[in-house]
Amino acid sequence: MVISVITSLTNPKIKRLIQLKNKARLRNREGVFIVEGSRMFLELPREETAELYVTEAFLHFIKDKKRLTEQLGLFQNQYEIVSDDVFARISDTVTPQGVLAVVKQKKYEAEELLSGQTAPLLLVIEDLQDPGNLGTMFRTAEAAGVSGIIMSRETVDIYNPKAVRSTMGSIFRVPFLYTDSLTKIIEDMRRRDIAVYAAALHRSVYYTEADYKKDCAILIGNEGKGLRQETVEAATQAISIPMQGKVESLNASVSAAVLLYEAARQRKP
Amino acid sequence: MVISVITSLTNPKIKRLIQLKNKARLRNREGVFIVEGSRMFLELPREETAELYVTEAFLHFIKDKKRLTEQLGLFQNQYEIVSDDVFARISDTVTPQGVLAVVKQKKYEAEELLSGQTAPLLLVIEDLQDPGNLGTMFRTAEAAGVSGIIMSRETVDIYNPKAVRSTMGSIFRVPFLYTDSLTKIIEDMRRRDIAVYAAALHRSVYYTEADYKKDCAILIGNEGKGLRQETVEAATQAISIPMQGKVESLNASVSAAVLLYEAARQRKP
Repeated sequence: MVISVITSLTNPKIKRLIQLKNKARLRNREGVFIVEGSRMFLELPREETAELYVTEAFLHFIKDKKRLTEQLGLFQNQYEIVSDDVFARISDTVTPQGVLAVVKQKKYEAEELLSGQTAPLLLVIEDLQDPGNLGTMFRTAEAAGVSGIIMSRETVDIYNPKAVRSTMGSIFRVPFLYTDSLTKIIEDMRRRDIAVYAAALHRSVYYTEADYKKDCAILIGNEGKGLRQETVEAATQAISIPMQGKVESLNASVSAAVLLYEAARQRKP
Repeated sequence: MVISVITSLTNPKIKRLIQLKNKARLRNREGVFIVEGSRMFLELPREETAELYVTEAFLHFIKDKKRLTEQLGLFQNQYEIVSDDVFARISDTVTPQGVLAVVKQKKYEAEELLSGQTAPLLLVIEDLQDPGNLGTMFRTAEAAGVSGIIMSRETVDIYNPKAVRSTMGSIFRVPFLYTDSLTKIIEDMRRRDIAVYAAALHRSVYYTEADYKKDCAILIGNEGKGLRQETVEAATQAISIPMQGKVESLNASVSAAVLLYEAARQRKP
């Protein structure tokens, strides 16, 4: 058996992968995104994975690793081998792990996220800019039992390679969507009797005083600016996290974690 | 008045600043660390600041910024001006803000952290590796009312420039120390009737079932490996954060936030 290895950066598949890594518009046009690293490889849903690229070092590395070998088995021989040099260019990381996939984007409708759930717990994110923060919020949200995530159009792309990695696989499991108008979707929630709690710094009650046992949504804003005024005003109630010392604000993904886990605590049977 | 601007990278002060940025050993030998950025500049304690470096662009930028101008006023003319090129080399960031200080390290003793507090709430960190995670934990800890932070010697240096920035100033306000033996200090805590709760994934009670109103310490481990077995065994009790979905673990600074804010919630008058 002859194993063919892609060694050229001018190979059209490689040129496209580099573009998919860097260009959100191309990812969205093709309806795919890039997933890399052995940790994320383990989480790959086989049926949603369109292409898989590995290095020979990766194939060697997984020989005595049961879970990785089983996962690769799902792909039979449906993968391409690329040289280390080529992999370094398609990878988004400093120390590439030699495995990268092209995965189909999933499309969720607002109706799926807002209805049909028993006691939905929604996370709504406005204009967040840091991909690591966004990915971490997905990971925390899944763990806290969030039923869906809604993001403003100006929020960083969840298909950004760093955001994808930071989700640690939650991107494959938590329903999410981007919307052009958060205020419209908040109004829709309120018509459906979903309580909408806006994380704010001022003019608010402490987050521990809100009731998360009912259907509810938690709104988190931009790292530096927080939520827009009109978004806070559209919400049912502004809530805040008390801060001691001289701290002016918390990290955005830390704030989300504190609020979501208070909801999980109250909801626990 | 002639303003002298440092424009040479061979200037001995500049060479030393570059070394201080990169070398933990030199920082510890000299008992200083580097603080940069206008956000951190606002938090600088004047009496602990040994040297201040700014660019002309920074001096121009702050002209109509009241808080920054007031803060610079505290330094009278005790600062050096450096060229943009030189600043880019002493800075640790991609987009330098033109202000950087050399600040004296503070030394805290274990006795200060473990005694004399009414109901101390301690954060104990073992072998954490990511400077951003460590800095974020300092910031969250101050906000949640932590009275002191104790770190294992293998934990990343809190004086690492990225860690310093991530504290958002909490490094100046929360007492902390590194120790060669966490188990020894845990034994010391238990002799003083401080309940020691170890964040673990298995064989534990849910974190919400522990009592944080009494004197207590919360132990957080390494990002990938968690706490060492002997550290968990030295603790009073192992606690875990319930996770839904298929999440295997939470981000370390997220875990710390969830636990510390549960303590803050229980302690709130």
